[in-house]
Amino acid sequence: MTQNAYDDPQFFEGYSRLGRSVEGLAGAAEWPALLAMLPPMRDLKVVDLGCGFGWFCRWAREQGAASVLGLDLSENMLARARAMTADAAIAYARADLERLDLPEGAFDLAYSSLAFHYVEDLAELLRRVHRALRPGGRLVFSIEHPIYMAPAAPSWAVDGEGRKTWPVDGYSREGPRVTDWLAKGVVKHHRTIGTTLNLLIRAGFTLAHIEEFSPTEAQIAAKPELAEERERPMFLMVAARRG
Amino acid sequence: MTQNAYDDPQFFEGYSRLGRSVEGLAGAAEWPALLAMLPPMRDLKVVDLGCGFGWFCRWAREQGAASVLGLDLSENMLARARAMTADAAIAYARADLERLDLPEGAFDLAYSSLAFHYVEDLAELLRRVHRALRPGGRLVFSIEHPIYMAPAAPSWAVDGEGRKTWPVDGYSREGPRVTDWLAKGVVKHHRTIGTTLNLLIRAGFTLAHIEEFSPTEAQIAAKPELAEERERPMFLMVAARRG
Repeated sequence: MTQNAYDDPQFFEGYSRLGRSVEGLAGAAEWPALLAMLPPMRDLKVVDLGCGFGWFCRWAREQGAASVLGLDLSENMLARARAMTADAAIAYARADLERLDLPEGAFDLAYSSLAFHYVEDLAELLRRVHRALRPGGRLVFSIEHPIYMAPAAPSWAVDGEGRKTWPVDGYSREGPRVTDWLAKGVVKHHRTIGTTLNLLIRAGFTLAHIEEFSPTEAQIAAKPELAEERERPMFLMVAARRG
Repeated sequence: MTQNAYDDPQFFEGYSRLGRSVEGLAGAAEWPALLAMLPPMRDLKVVDLGCGFGWFCRWAREQGAASVLGLDLSENMLARARAMTADAAIAYARADLERLDLPEGAFDLAYSSLAFHYVEDLAELLRRVHRALRPGGRLVFSIEHPIYMAPAAPSWAVDGEGRKTWPVDGYSREGPRVTDWLAKGVVKHHRTIGTTLNLLIRAGFTLAHIEEFSPTEAQIAAKPELAEERERPMFLMVAARRG
């Protein structure tokens, strides 16, 4: 079972204060890039894997999605999502992405924001997502970028000439990475880009677009601290199609 | 036009002494990984983009390829390749990958080892390679990995706890990277993984396999200095299919 950090009171409290929790999609710097990878929502049956507070679920419905199923492991997140939602075409349910059980061919779009890196058996999850999509259906997801996640000490350094650098090590050593983020001992699963993309291909997906988050000029003008995100990518985003 | 570093006497002299120049394919640590991505050679019409001394061209013929065309910008490399080859089904010709001119649908396999990162206009090259392949034909290539190529100072550092790290910066800043490797001022073109893969997709290719070089246990046992290659990938290898 996936570690349920989001139901740790300290983690949940910290997470609830992040820009992306308070402001929703607009509070996530990578959202415009993800948005550009999404199909038009009109009439789509959508599943959101790791829906959190349900911001994407509500947005998809506002854009005309036929129905949205939001899944999350965290009771805390789901309770907050339900409290923020008044729409009979949005359903929320508890689910562990390690043991996803979805009807076959039921969805036009599977979406997931920053959840798959908590999953240990990504191969099995992708097979199940593939089966849950209709032929031609899309999967669009983001994860922490492996460059960001790989290092033993994932933090900025300054080199001898004053340059801010991200010291990469352990890139090829896949497996758990334990960090203290909002709470102690949060477990994520590091995989190389190659591994993630090959798992998609082997599950039967056709890769449509791969994006590594980099802030735009406008984003940096509005929020200068984003500039460092150009030095190394924090997020990897992928759009794929069920063949 | 692509910089022709290989015809710089100092560069050529240095390059000629590398393991991969003296021993051929077996002298390149990433060759087993590339080999696993290649289709059986029997009866294939093959083009090698940046053929160097022709090691791959001769290997492909030994494996039963019907014909091999080896292209390179360097007269020095081509002269050496011709001197090492006695096979009427292998032809060598001078070509600039920035302005590749190949017959339509003429090849079953386009192969390229560590040449595409010298090319500025990769989009145009990939369109031309796509057109030169028959439908269903394959492109298999390696480039220097963008993690390896991006940094302003591409060299190992040691962090406060004695760990060897590869300090990444400038990952999102695409464009030329000038390094002194074998000769001064060698120009390579940095692109993110996302950019390279999206250019392939937009040229009409279907991605089949993405591999980031990491030495095997056996390789490290035979050559312990390869162990550091696990900390960050030096090479990116891609197999794609003309749809």
